[in-house]
Amino acid sequence: MPGNTFGEIFRITTFGESHGLAVGVVVDGCPPGLELSETDIQKELDRRRPGQGQLTTTRSEEDKVRILSGIIEGRTTGMPIAMIVENKDVDSTPYLEIKNKPRPSHGDYTYAVKYIHRDWRGGGRYSGRETVGRVAAGAIAKKLLASIGIEILSHTVNIHGVEVGEVSVSDIIENATKNPLRCANLEIAKKMEAEIIKAKQEGDSVGGIIELIALNVPPGLGEPVFDKLDADIAKALMSVGAVKGVEIGAGFKVAFKKGSENNDPFYIKNGKVRTKTNNSGGIQAGISNGMPIICRVAVKPTSSIAKRQETVDLEKMENTTIEIKGRHDPCIVPRVLPVCEAMLAIVLTDHAIRSGYLGCLEE
Amino acid sequence: MPGNTFGEIFRITTFGESHGLAVGVVVDGCPPGLELSETDIQKELDRRRPGQGQLTTTRSEEDKVRILSGIIEGRTTGMPIAMIVENKDVDSTPYLEIKNKPRPSHGDYTYAVKYIHRDWRGGGRYSGRETVGRVAAGAIAKKLLASIGIEILSHTVNIHGVEVGEVSVSDIIENATKNPLRCANLEIAKKMEAEIIKAKQEGDSVGGIIELIALNVPPGLGEPVFDKLDADIAKALMSVGAVKGVEIGAGFKVAFKKGSENNDPFYIKNGKVRTKTNNSGGIQAGISNGMPIICRVAVKPTSSIAKRQETVDLEKMENTTIEIKGRHDPCIVPRVLPVCEAMLAIVLTDHAIRSGYLGCLEE
Amino acid sequence: MPGNTFGEIFRITTFGESHGLAVGVVVDGCPPGLELSETDIQKELDRRRPGQGQLTTTRSEEDKVRILSGIIEGRTTGMPIAMIVENKDVDSTPYLEIKNKPRPSHGDYTYAVKYIHRDWRGGGRYSGRETVGRVAAGAIAKKLLASIGIEILSHTVNIHGVEVGEVSVSDIIENATKNPLRCANLEIAKKMEAEIIKAKQEGDSVGGIIELIALNVPPGLGEPVFDKLDADIAKALMSVGAVKGVEIGAGFKVAFKKGSENNDPFYIKNGKVRTKTNNSGGIQAGISNGMPIICRVAVKPTSSIAKRQETVDLEKMENTTIEIKGRHDPCIVPRVLPVCEAMLAIVLTDHAIRSGYLGCLEE
Amino acid sequence: MPGNTFGEIFRITTFGESHGLAVGVVVDGCPPGLELSETDIQKELDRRRPGQGQLTTTRSEEDKVRILSGIIEGRTTGMPIAMIVENKDVDSTPYLEIKNKPRPSHGDYTYAVKYIHRDWRGGGRYSGRETVGRVAAGAIAKKLLASIGIEILSHTVNIHGVEVGEVSVSDIIENATKNPLRCANLEIAKKMEAEIIKAKQEGDSVGGIIELIALNVPPGLGEPVFDKLDADIAKALMSVGAVKGVEIGAGFKVAFKKGSENNDPFYIKNGKVRTKTNNSGGIQAGISNGMPIICRVAVKPTSSIAKRQETVDLEKMENTTIEIKGRHDPCIVPRVLPVCEAMLAIVLTDHAIRSGYLGCLEE
Repeated sequence: MPGNTFGEIFRITTFGESHGLAVGVVVDGCPPGLELSETDIQKELDRRRPGQGQLTTTRSEEDKVRILSGIIEGRTTGMPIAMIVENKDVDSTPYLEIKNKPRPSHGDYTYAVKYIHRDWRGGGRYSGRETVGRVAAGAIAKKLLASIGIEILSHTVNIHGVEVGEVSVSDIIENATKNPLRCANLEIAKKMEAEIIKAKQEGDSVGGIIELIALNVPPGLGEPVFDKLDADIAKALMSVGAVKGVEIGAGFKVAFKKGSENNDPFYIKNGKVRTKTNNSGGIQAGISNGMPIICRVAVKPTSSIAKRQETVDLEKMENTTIEIKGRHDPCIVPRVLPVCEAMLAIVLTDHAIRSGYLGCLEE
Repeated sequence: MPGNTFGEIFRITTFGESHGLAVGVVVDGCPPGLELSETDIQKELDRRRPGQGQLTTTRSEEDKVRILSGIIEGRTTGMPIAMIVENKDVDSTPYLEIKNKPRPSHGDYTYAVKYIHRDWRGGGRYSGRETVGRVAAGAIAKKLLASIGIEILSHTVNIHGVEVGEVSVSDIIENATKNPLRCANLEIAKKMEAEIIKAKQEGDSVGGIIELIALNVPPGLGEPVFDKLDADIAKALMSVGAVKGVEIGAGFKVAFKKGSENNDPFYIKNGKVRTKTNNSGGIQAGISNGMPIICRVAVKPTSSIAKRQETVDLEKMENTTIEIKGRHDPCIVPRVLPVCEAMLAIVLTDHAIRSGYLGCLEE
Repeated sequence: MPGNTFGEIFRITTFGESHGLAVGVVVDGCPPGLELSETDIQKELDRRRPGQGQLTTTRSEEDKVRILSGIIEGRTTGMPIAMIVENKDVDSTPYLEIKNKPRPSHGDYTYAVKYIHRDWRGGGRYSGRETVGRVAAGAIAKKLLASIGIEILSHTVNIHGVEVGEVSVSDIIENATKNPLRCANLEIAKKMEAEIIKAKQEGDSVGGIIELIALNVPPGLGEPVFDKLDADIAKALMSVGAVKGVEIGAGFKVAFKKGSENNDPFYIKNGKVRTKTNNSGGIQAGISNGMPIICRVAVKPTSSIAKRQETVDLEKMENTTIEIKGRHDPCIVPRVLPVCEAMLAIVLTDHAIRSGYLGCLEE
Repeated sequence: MPGNTFGEIFRITTFGESHGLAVGVVVDGCPPGLELSETDIQKELDRRRPGQGQLTTTRSEEDKVRILSGIIEGRTTGMPIAMIVENKDVDSTPYLEIKNKPRPSHGDYTYAVKYIHRDWRGGGRYSGRETVGRVAAGAIAKKLLASIGIEILSHTVNIHGVEVGEVSVSDIIENATKNPLRCANLEIAKKMEAEIIKAKQEGDSVGGIIELIALNVPPGLGEPVFDKLDADIAKALMSVGAVKGVEIGAGFKVAFKKGSENNDPFYIKNGKVRTKTNNSGGIQAGISNGMPIICRVAVKPTSSIAKRQETVDLEKMENTTIEIKGRHDPCIVPRVLPVCEAMLAIVLTDHAIRSGYLGCLEE
């Protein structure tokens, strides 16, 4: 039955519900000797924290992490690292009245059918709050990757149809941190924000597309034939709540291309094999080829909206309507970004270790 | 290091290279009591078999399957079912001269980097031939699913930009089997074929998009929070060689939608909970909701093309060009279709068993 | 690298060090609907708690458990159950001076070699304190097993050569709870205690043998051919710190027997198949046969003893001696008993679920 | 449901029944570059082959192995290595009449209960013939271990109460290969053989004890806290059909010892840390310490004996008797020896890779 563990060697197990006592994660398989403090984790958690302006929910959580194990004298020991974040600003009242009325396109119905006795408070386990554990684990993964030079970038490429257009890696590095949406074009960022605020005013929500880039990934990560690097990335990203699509490199555009256009020609640059184009997105036959890894995910509009919606009463088994009163994000994209970064970092760390990297960190 | 096993309870392990002695699969976790013969497997293998007309490679393989274990008196015993298909029409000569010149966007380079001592004959393990084992295992999965009413359909929705447009499930059932591309609109099918033949004449290849539909999936399949049904489907499909993108339900279109448009309103129909639309693609919060499961995959144009291409000589570490002389498919879509069906069937079977279905088959 | 997770479907992940902030466990795969409170867990933890008399260490830990997730309205939800116990009575001073002098037959040396940067305080992760998480998880397993009638008993059969002799199940039920050693013969219990007190006075320690019995296990648990029920029990019990041997049924006595003596004849009793003897220990070909499951484990004398011992200085790489000053158990058997019960309960629960039991608990 | 796969990184999946078409194994995770031929495998298979004299069954199997995949130009490629052995000398007639009368202490009853539709011919999957796949995989493991200097020895220490007594490693190397029982004392070997022949004449069988030694194992293999090296060894060995007990180092003798006797004092020898005694059996806190790994397994007397035995008729559900007419070993010890060696080799290989050894084999 269980599915709360991810990764083969760098392996995380998350736990906790939106309105329970705490959310958290146990990270097993972190190599010993890594410098690690709660500050490293907190930095990443703060990026996904709610209550950061009008683009996100008004739920206010300090999200203060506590590391319970696996560290001595500021360094990891190779033992499991347990981290918890206690829930503070919990208000379950709005959920009581919709307990038997599943919110459309949320997890209420499927959890009620599958588990019968479910935690109905604030989305319980299927709340976005579950991702706290992922981001905390991802913070460790990022530090490990950084130790071998790998860096992960993310930016928003589309919000409700507003496309960022062509941007370079340096655009992303320079501009994405300057706006809450992490859009690499600051003009477009404003238009995207306008879309979100408009949706919010209508009691509605909007979706978008995120792009993730991993730089300096060595060739050779990924395992044939099922644990391909792209297959594991696809699983990792699709496991994030609001994600409905994942593509690697040229992605769905390959359907419009000929082989001669889509193939990435090899050439030698500074004694290294490179490709002239990167339609492969850095992965060929499931194994990294040394070029940047590029993937995109489709993020659906938040399913919890203020507008009245049609649903059913599961107790009376009759049609009814619902108005959702909790605090929700009009666009989940800015908060999904750090979660997707975390998941990509976790997959790369796991595969890096599987391929013989990160075996021993020097003290 | 290994990644050749897929599934938690219904678990398959594939083996074999394109030009080795045989390819095959061991299927573990098949419940006892299922009627199963080599004919059941052969039927599916024949669908992915090469040498079936001008749309596919001219390699001619009989692909005759032999079941070595796990069956007595025509029924499964619950023990591992090993199946092998011997390779017959093997010609490794064309590969000898390109041994050190990796074909662009194929697995030659990444396997050479990762494994050093690789099987260079006909793509070795990263050849499409590896999928024989998947399809054989998928045939068992389909029989198991059929025993609880689940049916899997697939059809081609795009070849090199030629879109099928709106089609119904009955269009798919009626028309898709009538053409090798499994296009549900017979007029469009001809246009698609024309694209492929044109590419072939140019020594080129084209890509496309496949849609998969699973009917009558009961609500409740899928596990929180990483082993979500859609996450496992994404991994399963992305692990197929030429696939570069996977989407569920509305997929990447969610980026253009508002929550009020994208949410699927619930209603009661014949005493059952249904949704009016199916943008969720039958999966909510990672768990099936009883509606049809719908997913699409992007299939890249075959990377092996006849046209001269730029590459490198890995021994001399210098730029060079390559002309590929093996036998290849100008469009891999028709042969990827049964493989994707198989992978979807395997995921659904695994999750059905994990959710308590298929525990005991009546004799 | 990681090995802190146990079980396939009922799956536990433990964390925490002896002198860290907390020890704990995440239990994934517990079916929804089970009534569960902190009292249920505390009851079992109290049995392994230190500081309970002269037979055990003087470290005094309240071992108060907190359940962080997976429960609402007094029942499980099917989501991960995280439980933590904070460490209170921590005194790392005695360990500082022996930091580079590995205690003979303890984990100091092997952890130092493998992890280099290890938690040297009080045995860190290889302390017996790690078993808190196992016992907490075992408490849940026992409740699940009880719901299908399975009960687990344990008793001490040997302490430093003092054998309990022939005892019946009712002797165990009646007498084992009446003495801290859980010996089923109260006269023998006194002799065993005398051995322990004598060893303590000498600054030494003694070992023993524990027997575990699982009653009312249905036939059919266990999987061919590697995940045999007895194989998983052997792993579970051998993974407990001080255990050096595991036997099932007649165990090592089979070496002295003929087939005609060792085979368990079948017969019908009240319409059920039973065996006249139980040399198989309730398991045949790796699958339970409906008879009581019987296994024994050998528990070594505590390696931390007060007597001066020969060891090496790992920094200076020279021979030296050591006197261990921490607080230790002169005989670990009474505290290993509940841990072994917990591990057996976890294996049986996991296999019961794998065999289709415990799928849905009635509310 | 499945349990036919063993190992985390060096991972084997076996298949096949005693009287089916073939038995075999898929070995995944073997590093690339290892020289490997069918001769390497055959050598080990020949050691467990039946029909080798009066101590074993008269079933005559050539046991000719075929490697189907994973090798090119005489070296492994890192891809799955599938190996099959076809069954030749199959005679299912004697099993037909006992189809519904389970042989005492064999797997007939438990498989009938669990799977209902079982392969009743010659023990099907629970026949000793299943171990062909283990031994074939073990042959690869042994070659990998040899490449880092690790060697595995085994010898018989007890047959039906006849003990070998004190023997040295050189006794084992010199004498064990000189007699089919692999007894390191040639005088005792004769007495052991006499016991077996006597049992055979009585239509009976006898059990025994095997000792396994792994030399030159580096310190550091094994993972806390559940995947301890000794825990995995215990599972591996207990998963072998006739094994009823496993002990490491001093094993059950620890119950009779004081800590001061049982602890292994450390000292420096040639700049390396060694222990003066080896009651730990080379493993401390679940991790190898660089001393020889020593374990013993109890092998029960073959359950298939010629003598008339009491059993039940599962169809009529009434008491009856049975006379078993198949061909069986009067003592399974000599044939279990290579299987146990194989399992130990597989565990050590898996853990060696998990600890960073065997990552890349030089060509």
